[in-house]
Amino acid sequence: MIKASVMYPYSEGKGFDMKYYCEKHVPMVKQKLGSACKNIAVEQGIAGGAPGAPPTYVATGHIYCESVEAFQAAFGPHVAEFRADMPNYTLIQPIIQISEVKI
Amino acid sequence: MIKASVMYPYSEGKGFDMKYYCEKHVPMVKQKLGSACKNIAVEQGIAGGAPGAPPTYVATGHIYCESVEAFQAAFGPHVAEFRADMPNYTLIQPIIQISEVKI
Repeated sequence: MIKASVMYPYSEGKGFDMKYYCEKHVPMVKQKLGSACKNIAVEQGIAGGAPGAPPTYVATGHIYCESVEAFQAAFGPHVAEFRADMPNYTLIQPIIQISEVKI
Repeated sequence: MIKASVMYPYSEGKGFDMKYYCEKHVPMVKQKLGSACKNIAVEQGIAGGAPGAPPTYVATGHIYCESVEAFQAAFGPHVAEFRADMPNYTLIQPIIQISEVKI
């Protein structure tokens, strides 16, 4: 199983509309990916490691797929559409990472 | 539900012993946290967003608890022990983040 993570760095003064993300963007992504998307997860950053420190990421979204190939085949055709929806919830540029689920 | 993430940044020349982490460190953490730990997840970074780019994090570990208070109460007393085990699998300094699970 692989996990494609979209991580939005905390940026002072830049907002993130979690309601829109959870109610509009993520369901749209899930629907477009179809059966290739085995699971989807979203978190809101609330704190960093040091006392009073902001979180590194204000929001993170994760898509779980059977393989990198399955993810790319399902995600690739919709990238432009997913990107076009981003300004509706944030102007923060996300960091992307593909990981292999070990546990 | 909250998620405490320990993220190890990819650092050229610094290794990460995933076998030790999964077979020794994580089970030890899970055992020490007891019933406060609702779930635990581990991933190995395999790629970044751009073609050929390394992952931002070479490894990530996540602890799920009912609340920040439950996490702190369970994790706090064992921090020194968890840290002392780190050199057994990596010399990379991790980034810590606490998040609220939304989806």
